[in-house]
Amino acid sequence: MASIRKLGIPASRLWRTNQQIRGLASHASNPSTSKGPTAIVFMNMGGPSTTDEVGGFLSRLFADPDLIPLGRLQSYIGPLISRRRTPKIQKQYAEIGGGSPIRKWSEHQASEMCKILDTISPDTAPHKPYVAFRYANPLTEETYNKLLADGFGDGKGGRAVAFTQYPQYSCSTTGSSLNELWKWRNRLDKGDANSKGAIAWSVIDRWPVHPGLVEAFAANIEKTLAEYPQDRRDKVVLLFSAHSLPMSVVNRGDPYPAEVAATVYAVMQRLKFKNPYRLVWQSQVGPSAWLGAQTSDTVANYVKKGQKELVLIPIAFTSDHIETLYELDQEIIGETGLDTVKRVESLNGSPIFIQALADIVKEHLAKNISCSPQMMLRCPGCVSERCLESKKFFGEQQASL
Amino acid sequence: MASIRKLGIPASRLWRTNQQIRGLASHASNPSTSKGPTAIVFMNMGGPSTTDEVGGFLSRLFADPDLIPLGRLQSYIGPLISRRRTPKIQKQYAEIGGGSPIRKWSEHQASEMCKILDTISPDTAPHKPYVAFRYANPLTEETYNKLLADGFGDGKGGRAVAFTQYPQYSCSTTGSSLNELWKWRNRLDKGDANSKGAIAWSVIDRWPVHPGLVEAFAANIEKTLAEYPQDRRDKVVLLFSAHSLPMSVVNRGDPYPAEVAATVYAVMQRLKFKNPYRLVWQSQVGPSAWLGAQTSDTVANYVKKGQKELVLIPIAFTSDHIETLYELDQEIIGETGLDTVKRVESLNGSPIFIQALADIVKEHLAKNISCSPQMMLRCPGCVSERCLESKKFFGEQQASL
Repeated sequence: MASIRKLGIPASRLWRTNQQIRGLASHASNPSTSKGPTAIVFMNMGGPSTTDEVGGFLSRLFADPDLIPLGRLQSYIGPLISRRRTPKIQKQYAEIGGGSPIRKWSEHQASEMCKILDTISPDTAPHKPYVAFRYANPLTEETYNKLLADGFGDGKGGRAVAFTQYPQYSCSTTGSSLNELWKWRNRLDKGDANSKGAIAWSVIDRWPVHPGLVEAFAANIEKTLAEYPQDRRDKVVLLFSAHSLPMSVVNRGDPYPAEVAATVYAVMQRLKFKNPYRLVWQSQVGPSAWLGAQTSDTVANYVKKGQKELVLIPIAFTSDHIETLYELDQEIIGETGLDTVKRVESLNGSPIFIQALADIVKEHLAKNISCSPQMMLRCPGCVSERCLESKKFFGEQQASL
Repeated sequence: MASIRKLGIPASRLWRTNQQIRGLASHASNPSTSKGPTAIVFMNMGGPSTTDEVGGFLSRLFADPDLIPLGRLQSYIGPLISRRRTPKIQKQYAEIGGGSPIRKWSEHQASEMCKILDTISPDTAPHKPYVAFRYANPLTEETYNKLLADGFGDGKGGRAVAFTQYPQYSCSTTGSSLNELWKWRNRLDKGDANSKGAIAWSVIDRWPVHPGLVEAFAANIEKTLAEYPQDRRDKVVLLFSAHSLPMSVVNRGDPYPAEVAATVYAVMQRLKFKNPYRLVWQSQVGPSAWLGAQTSDTVANYVKKGQKELVLIPIAFTSDHIETLYELDQEIIGETGLDTVKRVESLNGSPIFIQALADIVKEHLAKNISCSPQMMLRCPGCVSERCLESKKFFGEQQASL
């Protein structure tokens, strides 16, 4: 498409032409009134699709000061840690089938969601799916180049939505992805002196209690509960498990713990609080203090107390990844040796979930805001210039919408 | 009334007679079908009503292993700490008018709520208000004796609801009050060998997102926001402040942080997320690690960053007490010297709030359950025999309802 761009055909016209060729015109609004095309960019941490990609994945992860703040020595200590951990983590990926399924699921979800969007939001059609991972392929740089090659930005304008795939906002996750997107936007998407002609970005920065998300979680939980005998079903303890945060991040005022709790409460409301439950935290590493109670300790403690019917629910990631397939399934559940300790399926290809994604984007586009007021507020203890500038950038995108 | 009990007049008949005398019969159901009288016992930590009561209040507080676990040395260290702190805390109470208003507000709320209940829940009328504080007068022992004197329990049966005035459940707060209630019930309310004739207890153990509670908070927040110029109103940062917990309690799996977060999210939903906000934590003491971000640091940091329009919202207590009137108003807000940093009024005598209390009790009585399934689940890291036995007791009360 880059060669077509050189012919000077406006991207929007190109998309409409493609769409008519594909016979999708009936889904879109009248071409003359559509504000499309709209790029929807799924942001996530990603995971290595093959064991060969583990080294690069870990080196990027430990080089990210938004995720793992190692101070001035980041560029020295980061590579050391990542090199030392690579063989162990490669083995874990080998045991879950040779790689993370997160790319496959993300591409599937984004593409299916865009099909729905073309129908329910014709004004902004066609919708074009992209995936931008923070630490794995396709990386943000690669995806930004793809956007440019597809006729967005770089003098030609166009509209894109950065859609975080973390339902709850943390500076370590969505914040880091946004900082990365802002960095590559500045490096790659030149436009003119006033940034005219660059992509107009807006951000879906959090969606912890969207009814569709809640319904998707609840439906999967009910499916797993149905595997228990009816007379035992209400006695099963639900353990909602989210990736933990270091207490240094929690105490800085990161909004993630409170938003994860909001998701859990909304799911329990939908389930009418029939079962007892707890929100617990997984994947702590290293010697520093992290937020608990820990998922692994919790499972071990309840089993020891005689509570052997437990259902684990990954509540802060939407697709399977090593923390579900290896840590929960093989380590934590595996170690109990009990078939009464189960895990709820991740949302993955859930049609309820994909419909929810489409609804979230439709609602976002209809509101026409660049990001939530909440995203504009830095954490009380934040000292990051990156966060300051990146938030400012996305806030100011309002003028270009 | 104790003397009337000796005459052998059943308490229920006595109540109905009183009610007819007071001309309230039309509010209650047909006397022959009413399940009343119903005692509604407000449980809270309480506070010293005069500076003379500070010493006793603190000594009980530091003697409570559910609140401040000091191990085997509790009975030695507790009195030491409380004696050392008494003069300082007396001075704080002197500065807020000579005592805590929590008794006044609790008695007002309970009594007004019962009047509403007599109208909206005639089947369980008459409703009789009681207050049982954990560390201040009226203490749980005193209130239990009052219940017995009023014709409840002690062989005569009767129905009482333990209604926690902490909207969000913590083992340090509601848990401690329930353990205390269970202790005095065993000591004072004998009944026969099978506990027949003792009071039949049920527990309202949490109500973090009750729509009436949410509405009461939101209405007070809107009132405070209206004090800012209209063009600045949406820029004001809302800081929901809750009493913090030691990380040892958080990591044991205490449900409080997640339930406080649920309240905050529900209030923000009601306010349509117009303002940026954070959930922050106050009143940390001592050298151990507590959950943050700290309210005091947060206010100082935001002011330093230039965000000088801040509204503090006490979100985990419903009445004014030293943590609002002294810590928030005088220490934290006072130190900023800014009139753009404000505090939202506590719920205190809010008619929306008192209506909510009545609705919560009515819904609870209609469900006829002794407590929530969630209350029956001990924390994953719990090692307290008291909690185990007390939960078992309240769970088993189901049989007597």
